[in-house]
Order: sequence, then structure tokens, then C-alpha cells
Amino acid sequence: MENYVNIQKTVLTLIEEKNFQRLRDLLTTMQPADIAALFAELSEKNLPLVFRLLPKDLAAETFVEMDSDRQHLLIQGFSDTELQEVINELYVDDVAALIEEMPANVVKRILRQADPETRRQINEILKYPEDSAGSIMTTEFVSLRAHMTVAEALKRIRRQGIDSETINVCYVTDDGRRLIGVVSIRTIILAEEQDRIEDIMNRYVVSVRTTEDQESVVRLFAKYDLTVLPVVDGENRLVGIVTIDDALDVLQEETTEDFEKMAAITPTARPYLKTSVLEIWKSRIPWLLVLMISATFTGLIISHFEDALKAYVLLTAYIPMLMDTGGNSGSQASITVIRGLSLHELEFRDLFRVVWKEFRVAILAGFTLAVFNFVKLMLLDRVSLLVALVVCFTLMLTVFVAKLIGCSFPLIAQKAGFDPVVMASPFITTIVDALSLLIYFQIATILLGL
Amino acid sequence: MENYVNIQKTVLTLIEEKNFQRLRDLLTTMQPADIAALFAELSEKNLPLVFRLLPKDLAAETFVEMDSDRQHLLIQGFSDTELQEVINELYVDDVAALIEEMPANVVKRILRQADPETRRQINEILKYPEDSAGSIMTTEFVSLRAHMTVAEALKRIRRQGIDSETINVCYVTDDGRRLIGVVSIRTIILAEEQDRIEDIMNRYVVSVRTTEDQESVVRLFAKYDLTVLPVVDGENRLVGIVTIDDALDVLQEETTEDFEKMAAITPTARPYLKTSVLEIWKSRIPWLLVLMISATFTGLIISHFEDALKAYVLLTAYIPMLMDTGGNSGSQASITVIRGLSLHELEFRDLFRVVWKEFRVAILAGFTLAVFNFVKLMLLDRVSLLVALVVCFTLMLTVFVAKLIGCSFPLIAQKAGFDPVVMASPFITTIVDALSLLIYFQIATILLGL
Repeated sequence: MENYVNIQKTVLTLIEEKNFQRLRDLLTTMQPADIAALFAELSEKNLPLVFRLLPKDLAAETFVEMDSDRQHLLIQGFSDTELQEVINELYVDDVAALIEEMPANVVKRILRQADPETRRQINEILKYPEDSAGSIMTTEFVSLRAHMTVAEALKRIRRQGIDSETINVCYVTDDGRRLIGVVSIRTIILAEEQDRIEDIMNRYVVSVRTTEDQESVVRLFAKYDLTVLPVVDGENRLVGIVTIDDALDVLQEETTEDFEKMAAITPTARPYLKTSVLEIWKSRIPWLLVLMISATFTGLIISHFEDALKAYVLLTAYIPMLMDTGGNSGSQASITVIRGLSLHELEFRDLFRVVWKEFRVAILAGFTLAVFNFVKLMLLDRVSLLVALVVCFTLMLTVFVAKLIGCSFPLIAQKAGFDPVVMASPFITTIVDALSLLIYFQIATILLGL
Repeated sequence: MENYVNIQKTVLTLIEEKNFQRLRDLLTTMQPADIAALFAELSEKNLPLVFRLLPKDLAAETFVEMDSDRQHLLIQGFSDTELQEVINELYVDDVAALIEEMPANVVKRILRQADPETRRQINEILKYPEDSAGSIMTTEFVSLRAHMTVAEALKRIRRQGIDSETINVCYVTDDGRRLIGVVSIRTIILAEEQDRIEDIMNRYVVSVRTTEDQESVVRLFAKYDLTVLPVVDGENRLVGIVTIDDALDVLQEETTEDFEKMAAITPTARPYLKTSVLEIWKSRIPWLLVLMISATFTGLIISHFEDALKAYVLLTAYIPMLMDTGGNSGSQASITVIRGLSLHELEFRDLFRVVWKEFRVAILAGFTLAVFNFVKLMLLDRVSLLVALVVCFTLMLTVFVAKLIGCSFPLIAQKAGFDPVVMASPFITTIVDALSLLIYFQIATILLGL
């Protein structure tokens, strides 16, 4: 990081000195992602100046790494020729992603500058629903034919490879463009020149349909250790490929969404510091309101037992501890199950195994907590034996109920077609709160004869 | 999934019919990960029987995908020759990972069957600390020399490539094995036969030190869109490579750990259904105890205001709502910041920007919630104006305090060298609980004159 701050200073000095030759030399030693990070700090005046110093391919790679505000700024300063140059250097999937971020007038300019074939490919990608495999694929790939020899295949790879996003994996198609095999560049290089592709290819290809959700795409990458995944249409025709760098981005995005849902936040796609206060408020307030209103039930339960509480105000002191312990026990179970679901280690048919496991964990945990608490109640708080028993029985039952609800609700939610993540922490906490109070007052009524 | 159940049935039928030829034909059409999933359901008797049907390379690939219990079972049934065959087919990093999972006597057998060079490489990997780049790298890679022509490089790739985990990216080293450049197989294939590697290689290589934490490895993959990352020692000598499939596994593992920490669970590496009840209990009970004991403070606060509560038992009814809303507001802020930290969108120097943003969000959110609640208190609960004001002022202040604590604690924790994730939900909830009660009783004392 110190290094990074130094480079930033050097760049600013070089700009001031108008020493563009040295600035260019410095930039070409850097990684595109690092140059983009540097560009995020440059003034609006300096940004286009420095961007123009980059060699064509580095400029395109850097452009892709920049955030959409900076991209927009640059495009507004570009001449048509400059825009055309950048667009032609980019991979089609990156242009499609760019178009989704830009305002309508910029989109028009971009499409006008793209050559007809690129434009056709961009429109192909844009027609798929957001978050589908089709929307994150690229249409630039090498396809081979089964009857080719290795020498012929290499010739085609050399010709098509410059514009392809990867040549590490090549797909084999038949006359109808249907996907019939896969062969890695490594297999091709290790084979003999006269070998036929059909003899060295693997016929059992993992592929995904254009309409498939992007989450499934990530899962296939992880499950089958892939670096590229072919995308096919309804007739098994090869229409694109997804590369692992895009899958990794999707994974990060989906994980962030899961974290946000667990914290009762409506997911937003923008980075925190770029999101306005009003947007943050909008993404958080609905859940706070819903959860606040559902806490009305706990209030009603307490009001109902108002007279009992008047007689034993002492009981109030243990309400927060009981509610928190219940909430924590529940979210331990729910988050474990939710994570198991998203890693596909668990599914609905495991419901009874999960419940049986949590049943035993709950008994162990509830008992441990109750014993500790009993000692504390008797020795430190010095309450009566009956009050101690009320608190400890409630604790055990609350932990028990919380664990069972926590582990089963996410599984049931997914089965019913809801997002199990939304079932996590806050929702389950609210339910467990109400139940723990009911248990508390019931036990108190029995043991203390309220 | 239905498909999968069918295949399982077919396999069991074929075993019963002893139709091993058809079984073998069926298995060879399947992906290693799917065969491993199938093997997880086979009986201990059938497992070695079916495993032996697999062709050598598919057997090794399937072996890697199996869980360690099944691997152990198979190894126990292997003859020395069979073990040797599997070990020799595996990549060194996979053997190293296997060794870490097996009991000592099995480890000895494995090392005895590995050839001396493999044994040396395994020991090389095993000497690095757990979760370091060195411990997840493989030592099987192709390295080129700068003075080679493309034709010479291709010759070396053909010779070394069979045993390398990937040839998609090749690294260039000098006489002292120091890393001086990188060249992709695509660049090599698109170049002319007589081109020199030094002219087509990229001298600016992103690399990682053997001792670096595996989390940094994942970050570099994501930041620079890599598929392979070279690992170097203190003298910049190339000692291994990490491939993206392993980085993806690390990412999933680290994400699971974050989820677990947020749910107050001590991370365990094993999948849920494979973890014993006692282990689950052990991973969860410490935090439950700590949090239960820290809830003592909230109890003390309530006890302290016992007399006030006796006069206004009604106030008790709103305690759960205030605590929950505070907890939810706090974890919204903390999880947003924690996620920003792990995606490296945020760092400590952003503290004031973050606090200022949450300050404004808190005012907006607190005000909205208070207004809703005021209307409900007056119209539905029909409480007195003063009680309504006490509850609503507390709500606003609680949300405010919760947001500020939620957003700043993770940043401060990371700066102080603690894991920011542990600061999330449960911890912050406990603190916010205590503060919200203090605020509640203070305001009640003032407005209601208790």
C-alpha cells in the first residue's frame, strides 16, 4: 500500500512536469487493475490525458477495470475514432456489460462505433435476462470440427485465437453448430500433428443453457474444477462461453447479496462508498420497519402478563438474556444450514437428519447454558430457587426451540421456493423472541403460581 | 437430480448383475465429481470393486473429489501397487492435501509408495504453515528460459507438460531460478517459431510469497483476473504455482468461515452432516456462553431501574422492540462494512467517510422508524403522549448509536489486528442492547419523572 501511495505521487509529479515519456514507461510496467485504481484518484482534467498515453491493448484492459462513473467520463471525452478503438479492443461481453451501465445516449454512440458483427454479438448477449448464463457469456471463442487434424486445429486456433477470450479450452461442434466435444489446448499440444480431434477430444462436456441462472454457472465451475464453461441454446448449439474470471465476479456478487440479506438489507449492486445516503436508507428501512412491527407481538405478550410482572419485576431482568441467547442459538443453526444449502452440501431431503442432529446439539447446549446460569443465579444474583428454576428451564426450552426453528426454516423455505437466506438471523430472531417470552411466562405461571 | 437418482439405481443394478463391462462404460461417460458423489452412497464392499473398474486417469481424478473418509477406506483396501498407481497419477498438491487428512500409518504408506522426487516435492509443500500460499501450491509447472525460441519452448512444454497441472501459463526463470517473466500458451501459439521468449514474455509478473496468507492469494486472483499465480521464495525464486480451482476452494472455505464467525460459531472445516454432535456443540457453546454472560449487564441495568419499572410496567413491553431494532440497525451497518473490508473496497483510512455516511443514514432511518412507531403507539396501543415520546426518542437514539458502533467497530478491530468479522452481529447486538436500555431508562427518568 505504501508503494501504491508512492506511485500515485510520482504520477502526479510526472503530470505536472509534463514528462509524458517517463509517465508512459511507468504505466506500462503496471497491471491494468492497478492503473484503474490510480485513475480513480485522478482529476477529471488529468484522466483523459493520462489514459491517452497507454498503449492500445493496455488502455482497453484498464478501461474494463475502471468503475462506470470513470468510464462514462472518459467516453464523453473520446472522439468517435478513440471510442471505436477502445470498443474494438474490448471483448464482447465487456462491451455488453459496459452498455448496461451507460445512459441511453452513450449506448447509442457505442453501438454506432462498433462494427456490424460486434454489434450483432452485443445484441445477442443483451437479449438474455439479467443474471442468466447468456448475459455473462462472451461470443468470442474458438470452435473446432471433429474431423480436423491437430495441425489443422492449430491453424484455426492461430487464426481465431487473437479475438478469442481464451484458447485454453476449445469446443468441438458438428455441422449444425451443436456442441459435441471439448479439447484442451494442452491435449492438442501434447498430441501428434496428424491426430484427429475426434480421437483426442472428450465427448462428455459439462455445459449450461443460456437461460440458466448465473448461480448455477458458478456452482458448475466449482464442482467440476473448470476454467471455461460452454453455453448452449435449447438445441444444444454452442452460442458462447463463460470464463472463470467472470464466474469469480458473480460469486463475489452473490456472496455479498447473501451477507446483505442476512443483515436485513435489500441488496444493492454498487460499492458502499459510491452509494448515496438515500439509497442506503432505501435498502435498509423496509426490513427495519417489518421487523419493528413484528416485534409488536413480543410487546403484546409482555403486556398480557403485565400483572405477573408487577408481582415479580425481577423476572424482567432476565428477558434480554433469554431473548439474545435464543436468537444466537437460532442463527447458529440457521446460518449453518443456509451455508450448507448454498454449497450444495445439504438439500431438503436431509431435513430429518438435520433436525435430529440439531435436536441433540440443542439438548447439550441448552443443558450447558442452564447449568452455568443456575450457578450464577444462585451464587451471584442470589435469587430464590424457584426463580432460578424458571429462568433455567426457559433457557433450555428456548435454545431447543431456537435450534429446531433455525435449522428447519431455511430448508422449508427453499423447498417452498423462497430464498433461504432471508430466513436467517433477523426473521428467526423475531420468532424466537416471541416464543421465548411465551415459554418464560408459562413456566413462571406454573412454578411461581402467578 | 432425478437423473442422478436414476444413475445411482442403474449402477446398483449393474453391480448386482455383475455386468462390469456396462458399468465401466457408464462410469467413463461421467464427470469425476459426479462419480465421487455416487461413490459416497456405495457400500464399503462395493466401493473398491467399482473403483477398480475406472481407467487410471479417471480413477485418480475421482479419488481427489472423494471425501477423506472414503479415501481412507479405499486406501486401506489398496495393494501397494494400486496405491502407487493412484499416487503417481495425482498432482503433488493433491497428495499433500491427502496426507494432511490421513492418519499417521496411512501417511507412512503413501510416502513409501511415492517415488523419491514426488516425496521431496510433497515434503516441500508440507513444510509451509497451514493456510499459506506455499501450502496450497503445486510444484509441477513448466518453466521456460528467456533465450529460448518459441519452437524450443514448445518442445519443452511437450516434454514437461504431461506432469504439469497447467500449461496455460508458463513462467520464465533465469539461471538462479528467479522469476523474470510470464508468457501464456496463447501468446506462444500465436507467435512465430523463431521468436524469442524474452521478446514475447511479459516482465511484470504478479506473484506471491510462499508465506503469504491464502486469503491474499484469492484476492490477487480476483483483482488481476488470473487463472494461475506463481509462488516465489524470499529470493524471488519460483517454487510453485497455485491454480484457480484451488483458489476457488479457498474462497468458498473462507466465506463459510466468515458466515460462521458472524453467527458466533467457531469455524470447523468439515461439512455439517459429517460433523459429530459433540463437535458442533464444541464449536458453538463458547460463544453462547460468552454472550450469555455479557447479557448480564443488560440484566443489571434492568434491576437497577426495578422501582421505575414497577411504576411503569408498560415500559417493559417495548424493551424487546427497542433491543431488536437496535440490533438490526447495528448489524446492517457492521455487515456492510465487514463485506466492504473483505472485498477491499474499504480500509481504515475511510473511517470518517463511513461514519459520516452512517451518521446521515442513521438520522433518516431513526426518524422514519420513530414516526411509524409514534402513530402506532398513539392510535393502536393508545399510550399516553409522554410514554410515546419516551419510546420514540429512545428508538431514534438507539438506531443512531447502533449504526455508529456497527460501522466503526469492524474498521477499528481490523486496524487493531483483530478479525473484523467477529465484531459482527452478536457482539455488537450485546453492546447495543445494553446501551439501548440505558438510553431508555434515562429518557424515561427525565420525561416521566421516575
